[in-house]
Amino acid sequence: HIYAITPTYSRPAQKAELTRLSHLFMLLPNLHWIIVEDSNITTPLVRSLLQRAGLEKRSTQLNIKTPPEFKLQGKDPNWIKPRGVEQRNLALAWLRTHVDVDRHAIVFFMDDDNSYSTELFVEMTKIKPGHVGVWPVGLVGGLMVERPILNEDNTQVVGFNAAWRPERPFPIDMAAFAISMDLFIKNPQAVFSYEVQRGYQESEILRHLTTRQQLQPLANSCRDVLVWHTRTEKTKLTSEDALQRQGKRSDSGIEV
Amino acid sequence: HIYAITPTYSRPAQKAELTRLSHLFMLLPNLHWIIVEDSNITTPLVRSLLQRAGLEKRSTQLNIKTPPEFKLQGKDPNWIKPRGVEQRNLALAWLRTHVDVDRHAIVFFMDDDNSYSTELFVEMTKIKPGHVGVWPVGLVGGLMVERPILNEDNTQVVGFNAAWRPERPFPIDMAAFAISMDLFIKNPQAVFSYEVQRGYQESEILRHLTTRQQLQPLANSCRDVLVWHTRTEKTKLTSEDALQRQGKRSDSGIEV
Ligand SMILES: O=c1ccn([C@@H]2O[C@H](COP(=O)(O)OP(=O)(O)O)[C@@H](O)[C@H]2O)c(=O)[nH]1
Ligand SMILES: O=c1ccn([C@@H]2O[C@H](COP(=O)(O)OP(=O)(O)O)[C@@H](O)[C@H]2O)c(=O)[nH]1
Ligand SMILES: [Mn+2]
Ligand SMILES: [Mn+2]
Repeated sequence: HIYAITPTYSRPAQKAELTRLSHLFMLLPNLHWIIVEDSNITTPLVRSLLQRAGLEKRSTQLNIKTPPEFKLQGKDPNWIKPRGVEQRNLALAWLRTHVDVDRHAIVFFMDDDNSYSTELFVEMTKIKPGHVGVWPVGLVGGLMVERPILNEDNTQVVGFNAAWRPERPFPIDMAAFAISMDLFIKNPQAVFSYEVQRGYQESEILRHLTTRQQLQPLANSCRDVLVWHTRTEKTKLTSEDALQRQGKRSDSGIEV
Repeated sequence: HIYAITPTYSRPAQKAELTRLSHLFMLLPNLHWIIVEDSNITTPLVRSLLQRAGLEKRSTQLNIKTPPEFKLQGKDPNWIKPRGVEQRNLALAWLRTHVDVDRHAIVFFMDDDNSYSTELFVEMTKIKPGHVGVWPVGLVGGLMVERPILNEDNTQVVGFNAAWRPERPFPIDMAAFAISMDLFIKNPQAVFSYEVQRGYQESEILRHLTTRQQLQPLANSCRDVLVWHTRTEKTKLTSEDALQRQGKRSDSGIEV
């Protein structure tokens, strides 16, 4: 069983993103989707999306709002503050109390705007109890691909090719790894934190759970790219804004 | 049967886009994918993607390069020249010669970066021979949603809510309609053209095939949004460019 944890927040493209992400869950019966809304309520938008995708029994809808002091403001560049901290921690708390400890399961942090291949989830099922699996991620860190460097017989991670902050303990993206659930039970102190430098969320969670030496390389000895850190353009709503100044809108009574 | 025509071109996020799009085809057995590469060859990237998705028998891989005078240059804004003209026309030519004329089929123009709900394809199967089905599109034309306006009993399209160039004969996006195949057989002159104003590709093809009055409204009387005109951010490759100036690259021997 694989638990995918997705923080998500309201914006024009939210439903589009979650819709294309839901196709993975429709294709892969061993996936359970924990959607955590950055919101004071669980929304009908997410609820009905899960319903229409037939995922009611294979999903959990949670919510927790990012405190305003940590939320991006107007023109803040998006890297100024960590995103999804609160939401991922709530999902981890939920897992720690709701999951059968004796059953092997995998935890994966899945952002709502990345692109994932179905084959990535086949790789994850190879993660052994007590281990963290790792693989390359496309289009991230200013590179075509960020990836673990392996030893000669491809059994161990001996380094990383990251160009951005390579001095981090684990210089990899959130999409580059998945974790055997038992590690979260054995290490209750493993949580995300606002108190770390930019780019250190991955290192923060992993330092409690594993070492570089214990990482389990996957995806054809880290030579296949099965996930991409795509980002969606901010929607231009010039005409919509003009409409709204006249008290009108294009989507009244319509969920976009 | 539904034929989806997708023009596509090489760029860092191409494989990511086609991968998430392929999930729709994996989910919907009545879809046939005509991918037309904007390239002098059919590429191994697209070929192996179709193979790995198990779509060999439900796809057709074509190629035709956009002539350089019509290709976007460096910092051209993306709306300056039409995209996909050559590629969509090649797919139409292929359909006109390869498809069984006596079997009802639907043709849909599916860009590689939009987001589609599986429910959209269920709607398309309702299109009657001789007709063009229409529905709303999210996040396009500067609006949250562009959509057809219907008469009182919801049987006919009487207008459109487009804010951008509303004077167009059909002021709708390429994702807003699908066409009964017989119309392309009966109207061999229906093709896309470079000789039309910006925003007039949809009107150019539709004026040969239908009238506003004959359009068949779908998607819950045009109140459901089942497709979104999302656009993916251009990938920032600062570190990759620096590597390449040293004669290195992050993806040598790796397809991203
Ligand atoms: O205010 C926010 C901003 C982002 N996110 C979620 O956190 C994850 C990472 O955010 P984003 O994709 O914007 O980060 P980046 O692409 O810059 O890594 C995504 O699933 C978002 O939906 C969130 O819950 N609240
Ligand atoms: O030089 C190009 C540019 C675009 N396209 C394809 O044409 C379609 C429409 O292009 P795009 O998504 O960039 O247009 P927009 O989002 O601006 O409508 C997409 O399937 C692209 O992959 C292409 O074949 N060659
Ligand atoms: Mn993202
Ligand atoms: Mn597009």
